Amino acid sequence: MSLKADFTQEFARNQWYAAGWSAEVGTRPVARRILDQPVVLFRMPDGTAGALEDQCPHRLAPLSLGECTDGGLRCGYHGMVFDQNGTCISIPGQDVIPPTAKTRSYPTIERFGLIWLWMGRNVADETRMPHVPGYGQPGWEILENGYQHHLANYRIEIENLMDPAHTTFLHKETIGNPAAKNIPVEVSKTKSGIKAYRWLQNIPPTPLDRESRDFGAGRVDRQIAFHFQLPATSFVDIAVIPTGAERNEETMNAGVRTFSYKFLTPETQTTTHFFWLHIRNFRVGDDEFNRTLTASLEKTFEEDNVMASAIQSEQERSGLRQRTSLAIDRAPMMALRMIDRLVEEDRVAEAT
Amino acid sequence: MSLKADFTQEFARNQWYAAGWSAEVGTRPVARRILDQPVVLFRMPDGTAGALEDQCPHRLAPLSLGECTDGGLRCGYHGMVFDQNGTCISIPGQDVIPPTAKTRSYPTIERFGLIWLWMGRNVADETRMPHVPGYGQPGWEILENGYQHHLANYRIEIENLMDPAHTTFLHKETIGNPAAKNIPVEVSKTKSGIKAYRWLQNIPPTPLDRESRDFGAGRVDRQIAFHFQLPATSFVDIAVIPTGAERNEETMNAGVRTFSYKFLTPETQTTTHFFWLHIRNFRVGDDEFNRTLTASLEKTFEEDNVMASAIQSEQERSGLRQRTSLAIDRAPMMALRMIDRLVEEDRVAEAT
Amino acid sequence: MSLKADFTQEFARNQWYAAGWSAEVGTRPVARRILDQPVVLFRMPDGTAGALEDQCPHRLAPLSLGECTDGGLRCGYHGMVFDQNGTCISIPGQDVIPPTAKTRSYPTIERFGLIWLWMGRNVADETRMPHVPGYGQPGWEILENGYQHHLANYRIEIENLMDPAHTTFLHKETIGNPAAKNIPVEVSKTKSGIKAYRWLQNIPPTPLDRESRDFGAGRVDRQIAFHFQLPATSFVDIAVIPTGAERNEETMNAGVRTFSYKFLTPETQTTTHFFWLHIRNFRVGDDEFNRTLTASLEKTFEEDNVMASAIQSEQERSGLRQRTSLAIDRAPMMALRMIDRLVEEDRVAEAT
Repeated sequence: MSLKADFTQEFARNQWYAAGWSAEVGTRPVARRILDQPVVLFRMPDGTAGALEDQCPHRLAPLSLGECTDGGLRCGYHGMVFDQNGTCISIPGQDVIPPTAKTRSYPTIERFGLIWLWMGRNVADETRMPHVPGYGQPGWEILENGYQHHLANYRIEIENLMDPAHTTFLHKETIGNPAAKNIPVEVSKTKSGIKAYRWLQNIPPTPLDRESRDFGAGRVDRQIAFHFQLPATSFVDIAVIPTGAERNEETMNAGVRTFSYKFLTPETQTTTHFFWLHIRNFRVGDDEFNRTLTASLEKTFEEDNVMASAIQSEQERSGLRQRTSLAIDRAPMMALRMIDRLVEEDRVAEAT
Repeated sequence: MSLKADFTQEFARNQWYAAGWSAEVGTRPVARRILDQPVVLFRMPDGTAGALEDQCPHRLAPLSLGECTDGGLRCGYHGMVFDQNGTCISIPGQDVIPPTAKTRSYPTIERFGLIWLWMGRNVADETRMPHVPGYGQPGWEILENGYQHHLANYRIEIENLMDPAHTTFLHKETIGNPAAKNIPVEVSKTKSGIKAYRWLQNIPPTPLDRESRDFGAGRVDRQIAFHFQLPATSFVDIAVIPTGAERNEETMNAGVRTFSYKFLTPETQTTTHFFWLHIRNFRVGDDEFNRTLTASLEKTFEEDNVMASAIQSEQERSGLRQRTSLAIDRAPMMALRMIDRLVEEDRVAEAT
Repeated sequence: MSLKADFTQEFARNQWYAAGWSAEVGTRPVARRILDQPVVLFRMPDGTAGALEDQCPHRLAPLSLGECTDGGLRCGYHGMVFDQNGTCISIPGQDVIPPTAKTRSYPTIERFGLIWLWMGRNVADETRMPHVPGYGQPGWEILENGYQHHLANYRIEIENLMDPAHTTFLHKETIGNPAAKNIPVEVSKTKSGIKAYRWLQNIPPTPLDRESRDFGAGRVDRQIAFHFQLPATSFVDIAVIPTGAERNEETMNAGVRTFSYKFLTPETQTTTHFFWLHIRNFRVGDDEFNRTLTASLEKTFEEDNVMASAIQSEQERSGLRQRTSLAIDRAPMMALRMIDRLVEEDRVAEAT
């Protein structure tokens, strides 16, 4: 076998993508490339987030060089002002606004501390937004505003995130767990994606588990589940429950539980915005633990970046993607095929 | 409307372009890309400026890595010596000089503290040199040796320089003048270009005006004129005269007057040498004022560079140049059309 | 005349090329581009040097991000282990090794402190290895581990190294010798290359010569010979013998003698690994002299790099290689033609 690399693949556009943390966008506009489009994020006078193509229709000045003002975003070159629909509402020294004086706007939703953009031409569909259970609920601690710039196509990132097997080798100094490597991974479809998971059964709780919940003298079962949700969300769901307890949402939420989210947004064909969000139901309010955990997560994600970017470079050099296939490829391949189908849906929708 | 960007347009070659300040070229040769050609500037033993293609005909070593020597410019690799006509006059270890041992030379004129090159194949025409009234005359102060490297095609620079409307927004901290923005700009042809100008009438003189000339208790008229001269010179002519005085060269020179020159030389299709020269008839010999003014001019031109280079990048990315047209585009468009006609003249001349 | 530049020329592949100093490759693998191929150098558990294509056949991870382990080189992503033949010998979590799980290996020889790779598809031919007389013999001092990264195609480097005429100009502060420039250079073929040489006859020995050998009150003859050996070795052989002595290996080894080797290995079409090795039969064990000499050699080779990389850039810009030919071009042209013939041999061998 020999799979070709292809960096001309369309993105799934009629979807929500994280474009920036709410905290990033204050009184100054922010430039960001999203799905290879230049976008400017800004706030209207009432605080609503706006997102426009980062290009003034006059001389193509980036609107992100302008400023937030009464009525919208003002171009820094000749002062044309645009509202969050991309409509020009004033031109200095000129009363008539030509119909061509407009720029593309993107529907936005602000949720989970992030500004999300709908990048397609179809009507924005709020039901396609991801869910983050526990977010904003009492009893759950949130680490947010996490960001890394990864130098790889987002498909390489998704292959990495849906592949538990690499943790033993790539992350041997952080989350790698040699004990887990021989327990097979189950793969199943979910509502809008897949999960690859395994249960370590009837094992002693770790010291951290014991500190977080009273497991008595008993043993525990530990779930590690790698989720993929269309179009580009990944999360790891780790749950520790007493051995013998039923395995459901209720028991897992009563145990020790962690969700580690990565919202991937293609920047270009070869780079990815890697927004990460971590939520857990133990050690709530423990700032020192938060700092240690953040450092460990950042290190782990940077190890992924080093590997993914090296693979990106080698795919570009060789024109190949893969020369042999392993058993562990099943979940990653399923995830990529689901993306292919979304892209095909876009193509059909545009043709009609 | 939607204009395409085009970075394959020919330059107007049968013209004089500023290549470097005289003060830059001493005993060591200087490499400079001019109209996408590699050029070496140097001095002959008698001090005359020479300009050759920066390429030894032997192994293509840049002659700018060599040194000025008796007879001309000596290649730093094997010691071949070339005079200012590009003729090889000696080859170490070899008596016969092959006829192919020559390199292209460019006619030069040294004037206004600058070395000017004639870049075309036609006979150099000295009458096409720009004029700088007041240069070297008593009563006029000169700021020279100004240089910035701008990351944009020179046409984007010319659009910027012929467009008074942008100063209110892009230069709001330096030369921007909100009072001026509602006074219409007149556009007219000149001998070798165009000017866009307006007179602010019957206004009080500024404190600087009062310190420089005795306007008594009277009011003044202030001209701001943006000139373009083929192929790529821009200057702003600001004159303050007593209200009621006739508007001519004599009264303007008797008032407070400033010429702010920019000599643009295309380096490549996407970068421009920005030589600036400033001349005024007040505060002559005031070094502190010179320093303050230089800093303000440098800041203003760098603001232009930031905007022009952002537009350059966006034109390259999108393949577009403009998507809507405003009233203020008239003078810039006239300037660009005049350049187009020069390029067409070159084409016709070469075909004959 | 006008020769075109061509950076698509094939390399002579069925040859040995220096890939790295032995001292560079310890317990960690080393990534290096050789003849435009990504190669990883590593050591097997027994210390033998291995060289594989730096690409895991699974997801194309660079094997150089992995580690040396029992049995071979382990990929840092999913832990597949490869031996020095490129055969996968284990896959974590999977018993069956698919036949596609292999990567290309390169034959290696470790000699003269360097690891050499055979880059072709033919059977590796040890007789094609270069010779370094005196290496490892008593009475000879070695400077090794010399390396520079040169920004030019290796043919430009070879032209430089086979051309004694440039030293007067390019190296005027180090090895340039104006006295030599009018003595003609003889060029002759050798067993696997050519040499360009001249004898300075009946001259007084230098102070360094006198300190190194007892020439009495007599005069000396000094040979400077520039050798080229296929595919990409250059060395300068300098020998000082008493005037009147016969000129042969024995007398030259009894005199003051130096071999200055450069092993050139194409990295890409536009860059070259420049491994240098210096060996001499005088001032053996003189560390201070070694330091001075090393600094002088490094400076000289860097001057070559500056010139070669400028020529590389100008060849790329202009598409040309040479516009006029000089008498001194003879030896360089012979060397390049010999490389052309090797490339043609490869082509014929592959077609059969």
